[in-house]
Amino acid sequence: MDEIKIFAPATIANISCGFDVLGCCLDTLGDEMIVRKSSVKGVRITKIIGEDLPLDTEKNVAGVAALALLKNIKEEYGFEIEIYKNIKPGSGVGSSAASAAGVVFAINELLNKPFTKLELVEFAREGERLACGSPIADNVAPAIFGGFTLVKSTNPLQIVELPSFKGLYATIIHPQIEIKTEDSRSILPRKIDLSLAVKQSANLGSLIHALHTNDYFLFSESLTDYIVEPHRSKLIPDFDKVKSNALKAGALGCGISGSGPSIFTFSKNIQTAYNVQGAINKVYEKNGIAHHTYVTKINIEGVKVL
Amino acid sequence: MDEIKIFAPATIANISCGFDVLGCCLDTLGDEMIVRKSSVKGVRITKIIGEDLPLDTEKNVAGVAALALLKNIKEEYGFEIEIYKNIKPGSGVGSSAASAAGVVFAINELLNKPFTKLELVEFAREGERLACGSPIADNVAPAIFGGFTLVKSTNPLQIVELPSFKGLYATIIHPQIEIKTEDSRSILPRKIDLSLAVKQSANLGSLIHALHTNDYFLFSESLTDYIVEPHRSKLIPDFDKVKSNALKAGALGCGISGSGPSIFTFSKNIQTAYNVQGAINKVYEKNGIAHHTYVTKINIEGVKVL
Repeated sequence: MDEIKIFAPATIANISCGFDVLGCCLDTLGDEMIVRKSSVKGVRITKIIGEDLPLDTEKNVAGVAALALLKNIKEEYGFEIEIYKNIKPGSGVGSSAASAAGVVFAINELLNKPFTKLELVEFAREGERLACGSPIADNVAPAIFGGFTLVKSTNPLQIVELPSFKGLYATIIHPQIEIKTEDSRSILPRKIDLSLAVKQSANLGSLIHALHTNDYFLFSESLTDYIVEPHRSKLIPDFDKVKSNALKAGALGCGISGSGPSIFTFSKNIQTAYNVQGAINKVYEKNGIAHHTYVTKINIEGVKVL
Repeated sequence: MDEIKIFAPATIANISCGFDVLGCCLDTLGDEMIVRKSSVKGVRITKIIGEDLPLDTEKNVAGVAALALLKNIKEEYGFEIEIYKNIKPGSGVGSSAASAAGVVFAINELLNKPFTKLELVEFAREGERLACGSPIADNVAPAIFGGFTLVKSTNPLQIVELPSFKGLYATIIHPQIEIKTEDSRSILPRKIDLSLAVKQSANLGSLIHALHTNDYFLFSESLTDYIVEPHRSKLIPDFDKVKSNALKAGALGCGISGSGPSIFTFSKNIQTAYNVQGAINKVYEKNGIAHHTYVTKINIEGVKVL
């Protein structure tokens, strides 16, 4: 195989009680990429459609992730990358992670899979280092493993692959506003009450138990964020109204995707997910904020060959 | 049935990454209680063997827990309680919880089980309120449910029953020193770094995943406490040496049981648990600190009828 076309999925990170550690993979929302072997060594980005992103390998998230992988092999050839972006950078659903995860997955396939998924996450997070200054793994891990993942530790990197519910859907709403990374970071307290940390961790533990036992009620009860959402939700217009509409329409939970501005919700089935879409669209239609919404299954495969 | 004899187990709370929420139930270490119906209404403690504890119902943990239960039934008779204490109060392995959990379990049996286990925890934690000023549930929950339990929430009370490993053993060492409750509380910071809270919660999540997937390696890797142990271990002589000896002898993990001074360790099998016992005994033998050690299976039943 000399060429491969893949789907690189969007992901939700910072899922409510799982700030910095819990993420999940989406299905129909994502980029496409074509990666092909080339007789010229190195990595070249030959085409980017959909967004205005740098073609310079060293300045492109996918380029940097590919280079991190290539350091670990001895091949006489190189790779060319075409990127078809659907995920808007800065939307909060793992745009850079999709590019980074997609390219390392694709090259691994072309090389006949010498690397484990964990190693692919290691390479992909070098792309995240370029994008946000830190080699975070909470978007690239679900993009590569699929389903729900827990970043147990970043040094050494340890990823826990969690089970998922069959038939779980996400509805995402993306208000077309920009949140500066520095604002979403600086609004968080550096120190938090020990009692809140205990409540938050009990919810994370319960959520993981709920995934293992197929307990929608407990999953829903555990989707609470005492620590981050009270601060970051101030940066998102009408967050509280979106959330209350989503829950009233039957969502199992609702929170900020990544560091926003997208808002995620989970639903038990596709019909509820569409009901939630209608209910949350209303909020931004009423106040005239431009927005996109997406309804998608939870993707338990991760990046996949098209 | 007019009389019942039960075993009321010791428990470990504050298991490493699960401060205030994660506990487990022990097997051979525990109290015995005899509870019988009486034609006289109310609750009377007729005998306490093994420890000097108050016979006055209102001042006794078991008495108060029994009264909490009795408020919820309409019976024409009362109950007499005999307590045979083996668990030393103040040792950190749930002495008061055993008395409280034992008595409400026993009365529920005599009444033909009108109450759920969750309701029994509600009653029993009134005993904890008497013992420590707060209706904590992280010892009474594992005493009543058995195995590992997570206190998801205290208001409303929500308990998650976790799976356990088959064949898991605990070795407990109890140095005969007193730690004042106020000291073990006041040594804890009220605020902690957000980054530490994230690491701690990832460990709690991983530990719960490990219990569900029978993953001893991950269980062991998750038994780390970034928040409480660094402070409270200062109150326990040679804690670090006990811990390093335990881990060298093959323990899966080691930490402070409850608020101490007992130290718990977990082992994969009984032989390792005894090896750990030998290794940690050496520490206190060398420095001349009086101590007891116990080797016990994890008890997945909780309180049981004898």
